Order: sequence, then C-alpha cells, then structure tokens
Amino acid sequence: MTDRIAHEQLKSKVMSAEEAAQFVNNGDKVGMSGFTGAGYPKALPTAIANKAKDAHSRGEDFKIDVFTGASTAPDCDGVLAEAEAVNYRAPYASDPIMRKAINAGEMKYQDIHLSHMGLQVEQGFFGKFDVAIIEAVRITEEGNIVPSSAVGNNVEYINAADKVIIEINEWQSEDLEGMHDIWSMPALPNRTPIPINKPGDRIGTTYIPIESSKVVAVVKTNAPDRNAPFKPVDETSEQIAGHFLDLLEGEVKAGRLTYDGYIMQSGVGNVPNAVMAGLLDSKFENIQAYTEVIQDGMLDLIDAGKMTVASATSFALSPEYAEKMNAEAKKYRESIILRPQQISNHPEVVRRTGLISSNGMIEADIYGNVNSTNVSGSRIMNGIGGSGDFTRNAFLSTFISGTIAKDGAISTIVPFASHIDHTEHDAMVIITERGYADLRGLAPRDRVKKMIEIAHPDYQPLLEEYYERAKSKGTGLQTPHDLATAFDFHINLAEKGSMKG
Amino acid sequence: MTDRIAHEQLKSKVMSAEEAAQFVNNGDKVGMSGFTGAGYPKALPTAIANKAKDAHSRGEDFKIDVFTGASTAPDCDGVLAEAEAVNYRAPYASDPIMRKAINAGEMKYQDIHLSHMGLQVEQGFFGKFDVAIIEAVRITEEGNIVPSSAVGNNVEYINAADKVIIEINEWQSEDLEGMHDIWSMPALPNRTPIPINKPGDRIGTTYIPIESSKVVAVVKTNAPDRNAPFKPVDETSEQIAGHFLDLLEGEVKAGRLTYDGYIMQSGVGNVPNAVMAGLLDSKFENIQAYTEVIQDGMLDLIDAGKMTVASATSFALSPEYAEKMNAEAKKYRESIILRPQQISNHPEVVRRTGLISSNGMIEADIYGNVNSTNVSGSRIMNGIGGSGDFTRNAFLSTFISGTIAKDGAISTIVPFASHIDHTEHDAMVIITERGYADLRGLAPRDRVKKMIEIAHPDYQPLLEEYYERAKSKGTGLQTPHDLATAFDFHINLAEKGSMKG
Repeated sequence: MTDRIAHEQLKSKVMSAEEAAQFVNNGDKVGMSGFTGAGYPKALPTAIANKAKDAHSRGEDFKIDVFTGASTAPDCDGVLAEAEAVNYRAPYASDPIMRKAINAGEMKYQDIHLSHMGLQVEQGFFGKFDVAIIEAVRITEEGNIVPSSAVGNNVEYINAADKVIIEINEWQSEDLEGMHDIWSMPALPNRTPIPINKPGDRIGTTYIPIESSKVVAVVKTNAPDRNAPFKPVDETSEQIAGHFLDLLEGEVKAGRLTYDGYIMQSGVGNVPNAVMAGLLDSKFENIQAYTEVIQDGMLDLIDAGKMTVASATSFALSPEYAEKMNAEAKKYRESIILRPQQISNHPEVVRRTGLISSNGMIEADIYGNVNSTNVSGSRIMNGIGGSGDFTRNAFLSTFISGTIAKDGAISTIVPFASHIDHTEHDAMVIITERGYADLRGLAPRDRVKKMIEIAHPDYQPLLEEYYERAKSKGTGLQTPHDLATAFDFHINLAEKGSMKG
Repeated sequence: MTDRIAHEQLKSKVMSAEEAAQFVNNGDKVGMSGFTGAGYPKALPTAIANKAKDAHSRGEDFKIDVFTGASTAPDCDGVLAEAEAVNYRAPYASDPIMRKAINAGEMKYQDIHLSHMGLQVEQGFFGKFDVAIIEAVRITEEGNIVPSSAVGNNVEYINAADKVIIEINEWQSEDLEGMHDIWSMPALPNRTPIPINKPGDRIGTTYIPIESSKVVAVVKTNAPDRNAPFKPVDETSEQIAGHFLDLLEGEVKAGRLTYDGYIMQSGVGNVPNAVMAGLLDSKFENIQAYTEVIQDGMLDLIDAGKMTVASATSFALSPEYAEKMNAEAKKYRESIILRPQQISNHPEVVRRTGLISSNGMIEADIYGNVNSTNVSGSRIMNGIGGSGDFTRNAFLSTFISGTIAKDGAISTIVPFASHIDHTEHDAMVIITERGYADLRGLAPRDRVKKMIEIAHPDYQPLLEEYYERAKSKGTGLQTPHDLATAFDFHINLAEKGSMKG
C-alpha cells in the first residue's frame, strides 16, 4: 500500500478534525467536496457543527455559507443544519433536516444549475472563499490531490479559497487514482473549446494541482459515503421504463438513432435503474453515458459488455455496489471517468454528444412546463441539479414520473405548474406509467391532448374541464389558461388534502 | 456589375413568382429565409397567398407549414396569414395579422429557441421539407448561393428540402458578398467543437453550397427589407440604459470586466439603442458583439472606432441605416459577420465568449422568473427568439423593461409571472427605469426586496402586500407564494382594466 500522504510538508499538517476546525470561522464562505452523497468531507462538518453549537451556547453568532458539488449526507448537511450553523447554501441540497430548515425560512438556499456553480465562483460572483474542505484518496509526492468518489467543484473551490483542508479517507479505494480527468476551462478572454468529442475522451490530469502552502490541515478519516440502497423496482417504475425503451425504439425506427452507440444521461432513481435493467436485454450495444452520476445499473451494463464508457462527476451507488467499486476500481477506471461538474454537465459538451436526457420531476403542466423543485410552488424538495444542464442541450430530452403521489391525492400532471424549472421550449417528451407524450413539433394546444392522455384517469376529466374552461375564456388561444382557477389543484390539496377537491 | 445569376443552368430556371408558386402545394412544409424583417423572400409569399385564396374560393384546402429564421414582414407572414394559408408556423413570428390569427386559435404556432430550429430540422424531428424559398444576392458561377441580409436557417432548410426556389433581390447590395460565414456542424456521432474562440473568428465559406439540381425556380425581385424606423429614444429608455451602463461600470470596479473588449449581446429596441449611444461616450473600447442582429447603434460604434467586430445572423436596421449598409457594405464586411443562426446563437460559443446579454421582457416576478412571450399567460406577443440561447449561457444575463405599460394599468413586476420563459436559475439582473435588481448569489426571499425596489411606486405596496400574505401562509418559505391570489394582478387587469384592481 502506498503512503496516502506522500508529500513531506503536508505530513506535518496532519491533525484532528477538531483542531482543523479552528480554521473555519463565523461568516466564512466554505467550499466543500461532495456530490450525491459521495466524496463529501466526513469529519470536518461534525467538528464545525460542534464549534457552532459551542458558540451558540455562549450566545455568540456562528454561521457559515456552504458550497458543495451537490447533495451530501446526514454527517455533512445534516449535522450542520441541525447545529444551525448554515447561513446560505448552494447549489443543491437534499438532506431532510436541512430541507426542513430551508422551508421554515431559517436558512438561505440558492438553487443553481450544477454546471453554473463553479463557473460563477470563477467569474467572481461570490468573491473570495475562506476555506475549501476537500476529501481525497491520496496526496501525491508532489502535493497534488487525488480526489475520491466525486470531483464536483473541488478545483474551483480550492482556487477561490485562502485555506485548504484535506480529508484523506482510507475507506475510499486507492485504485480510484486514474479514474479522474481534471481539466479547467481556460480563463476569459481567451477561452477555447473543450476538446471532448465523445464521452470517453480524456483531456486532463488524474489529480488536482494545488499550492501546498494553502493547505492548513490534513485530516485522516475512514468512513463510507452515504450510499443508500435502492428500493426494489415497483410496477410503476417498470412501466415507465418500458415506455422509455419504446421511445428509443421509435427513434431507431424513425432513423434518428441507431442500436450502436446510444448516449445516455440519466437522473438517479428507480426508473433509471429499471431502464438500465431493460437495456441489458435490449438490442442497444456500445452504450455510452455522459451524465453526472454513476449508478448501479451502469456497472451492470459495463460488466455485461453493453456499455463501453461512462463519464460523470460522482458515484451514486448502493452500499453493495460501492463495495464492489472499492474492490474493483482498477477494472472500472478503464471505462469510467470522473470529471469536474463544470465539464460533466457543460452545455457545450452536452450538445455536442447528442445525448438523450432523462430526469425526474415533481409535476408538469398541460403545455409541458416542468417543475423539478418546489412542491406547490413554495416548498423546496431538493433542487434543479443537472436537469437543466442536460435538458436544454440534449438531442432529445425526457422527464419521467408516475401520474400520482400520496395515494392519488396528488396528480403530477396539472393545469399550471406551480413552479417552472424547464419551459415549454425545452421539455420534449414527458413519460408516465400510462405512456409518453411526445411534444416535439407541437404547438401548445396540440400538446394538451397528449399530456392529458398520460395523466391518471381520475384526473383526466378535471384536466379536460380546466382546458375547456380556459379556451372558453378566449383571452388568448395560443396557450389557453384561466388564471383564476389555474392553481385550483394545488389550492384543493392545501385546503382539502387532495387535488381532486 | 457582375451577373447576379452566373450559373448557366440556373439562368434557364428564371420565372415569375406566380410560375414558381406551382412548386408549392397544399400541406407542404416550406422553409424560408428571413430573420427580423431582413432577407425574407419578397415575391413568393404573395404568390403563394394568392394561390391559397384561389384554392379557398374554389372550396379547396390550401395551407402550408412555414418555417423561417425568425420574424419576416407584412409581405411575407402578413399576406400568408391574411390568406389563411398557414397551418403551422415556427420558430418566431411578430406580424400583427399573424399574431391575431394565432391568438384567435386559427393557426398553430410553436415558439422555439432560435438556436434549436435548424438543429431540430437536422435531427429529423420535422421530417423532409418540400420546398425551401431563399432570398439571395447572387448565384455564383458554380451555382452556390450568396445569401442576402440574413442567413437564418437557410442551410438547414435547403438541405432538408426536395425543391429549392431562389429569389435574387437586386435591392440587396452585391457587396454583401464576403460578409457571410457559412459553416455547418459536423453530423452526429462525430460532432466536433465549433472552432470560434472570439466573435470575429471566420470559420466557413462566404456562400451556401447547393445541389443545383434541386433548384426548381429562380425569381428576380427588387424590394427593400422591412426596415422599421426606430422610435426616438424616450426618457424611460434612457434611464434604463443609464442603469445598464452603471451595471457595467460596477462589473469593472469589481474586477470582473475590463474597459477593453466587452462582449455584447443585445435584443432589438429603444433601450439597446440608448445603451449603444451611451457606449459611444463611455470608457469602453474594442467592444465586440456576439449577437443575433446588427442594429443601427452597432454601425455607429463601428464608425466611431469603438466596436471592432459584430457577429450576428441578420440585420435589423432603420431604412436610413439599411441604405447606408447597401452603400457601404464593402467597408462594413470587414467588421461584420453574418452566420447561420445555429452558430450566432449557439450555447457552446455563447458561453465561450463570456458575453453580457440584454433582452426585453413582458414581465418578471418577485423571484426573478421572466415572461418573454405570453401576455397574461395566454396571448402570444412574438416569441422567445434568441433570449433563451443567450441568457442561459451568458457571463452575465440581464432583462430590461419599463416598470409599467398601458398608462400604468400594467405592472411589469408581478407576484407570479403568468408564463415563464427564463427561470429563477437563469435571470441574473433585472433592470427598469428605477434601477437594477442584481439577483446573483441571492436566495429567493432575498430577491424579493430587490425586485420590489425596481417596481413602479404605485405597485410597490401591492407587491409587498402579496409577499407578506405569501409568507404568512407558511406552506413553504423557500419561495413564499399564496397560489390563491398569485394571479390577482392579471385577473384584475382582465376584469377591471388595471392590475391595481
């Protein structure tokens, strides 16, 4: 086994998390590693949370601004939120305790496209960062950092910060070294193309270069990522996955896709897993993924020889598959690439690849506007994540959801989406267990019939009724709406417990 | 003077517009040149409209699907709409007669990002086209086409069509030859980067290559583009322009912009003209434009030596400046480049340049969601145009509007935008005559105060009232809304003639 801290000077910076927390102060801007529960710092967040609690118990202020790649875990966002240690959070959060604090108005949360976060930091919109806290597999002889199971915005946060704290997590396999591809956009005004033509192209280094003088602490940890087991695939997910595969088959029939080399982007969840299971038995070969997270199903596709390469910025694996990754990283690093999220999600590369995107949603309206973030317009679920990065530039964009939630009290097809993250200009195909609504080439009124067809039968008459009423108002028939009753579904839900009223 | 039809075989295809209209039939998909009233076919639309009227008078069906670059003119969209000759229209329309037909539900209109239109045709989402009708300055000896005052989607429509009709417009200066830069994206699966690093980079040919066997007719015309005179700049526009320039100055102070080499994208209108007039007297030098239309103010900046290059896909000039262009095209082609709209508006290049975008809007809500298209959610004004292409990938995106319309009956800052084309994730700065709301780095609740500050004083108390009520509902404080009254402004306007109620 190699020395995980091979740089002589940085060996002397090894200390406990509690000691390292001295470098994090009230009011600090802190950039952390971590994306979808992978690669986040395991020790510092708790140490910072404890520091905050101590300060609060003394009647002192202690809150920091926390920037990450995307979601982290209970031992990161969870402990920080519980300690009321966070003032502002970006670009994504999914922790239940933090979500509660956000929706209670107790902390500030800005929901930012994942490809924009690092970029906006580089552009100087957030000023200097005080500290970057980055999980790594190893520090090389030269003092470079080999990231762990996520790259996220590590590079941008390290560059923006005055001080860097590195966590070396021994739970992460050293064989991850070689899987990363670290490349930074040339700065303005001399930016040049990103030289990735295919998902498998490697363009950078396997480590993050770093000025070792910035490193104020190195903390050793040994703790697993937050790897949540996937729920067994249910009938609804299987039906949706079936329709998605039908859509792909239809594209092949229409001459717009071939069985060879389909490029996948996929959100996380049960349906994507069912899709990938379906692809195992399909005619599609040499599948490639250009996406933000590596999921269980992709490892299965790689193992089966169906997927040649998967490019992402992090893992989102079940505990079983995370173990497999740690044991077989040497093999998987031949076909998996982890990039900075600016690159994994970059509009330029996304559009170039011609990928087919697939993301979950909270609701879509009858014209194909999609809400990915705010329940009933106000209560944040998680965030937009990379769905906008991929949807806006996909060859073909899809959104997936079951037709109902909460035992039928909620319809995911509504008259007017209560928050809009993806507009009618961007969402091409909406898929539920009832089929898919292909909205390409359709004027708004022609979309309505297709959207109502994929809604739950209990809600179809209510949606019809709304549309007829909207047309009869006659205030404009491009996108007929009756604004006085546009949110009745949501108001019914709040007042009567069901969108049915 | 050169021979405008230099290709021997194509000389034999010269005929009248009425004769050429024989090639356009009921049910056809027709792709036309034309963008912002420039470079659209001048003769065929009227000939097709007459053919439609004749058919209708005989009780026969005659409707076509019309695709262009963007807006055209009364003698194109206008005559076709008046003759009820259009079934489906994309990606943009601004003609008053056509708008009326669309909003009356009499024709179908799909409002598509301008950078997506040609792409989606290439991707096969619209199938084969029957006819392409393209205005040109000249046909070369080799049978290539030199486009006129707009490039738009000419290349994509010619490639997709079985038959091509060329209009040679002698009103357009032959000196435009050399101004165009025609380049097509390599096809999937081997797409490569667009090799444009700076607005002034030329990467293609000055003509559109074409299989001359596809050309079924050549029609000679001599008619001006629709060049609308700009209204004199009013006080509101001047104030908005002033705030925009303050914003730029602020970026310079913050070290995010330099006086040398600012890259501009600008929608059309009075405010952009006032901004450009302001830039004439500013410290900014070597300004570049990467935008979709060349406006009067850009010619002034070029003449004054303040702007080094302007890249676009078409002109939008006043009659006076159009004459100037026709007289001095030989000079202007040194610093102006006209590209296919897929390239002028391409996310890849837009993000690479680091441009600052500025586009008009219908309304914005208190959280920064922007409506660019549908009045009161239902009645289309024009379309999204390129605003999404630029906003989503700009270094810094801005939207501009006066605070009120219709003598104060309408507030452009509303509780909930009645249609959303640009989400809270994309709109960075909103500017009215009262100042600018810089929403960068702000969580939703922190945006509200800034948005209300730039609203009209008559509406500020109403917006405050809404926000307080929304917070008191407590259903979620990430994006406080009271869905039951979210559209009261719009409902008041419909029922009582003013948003004030």
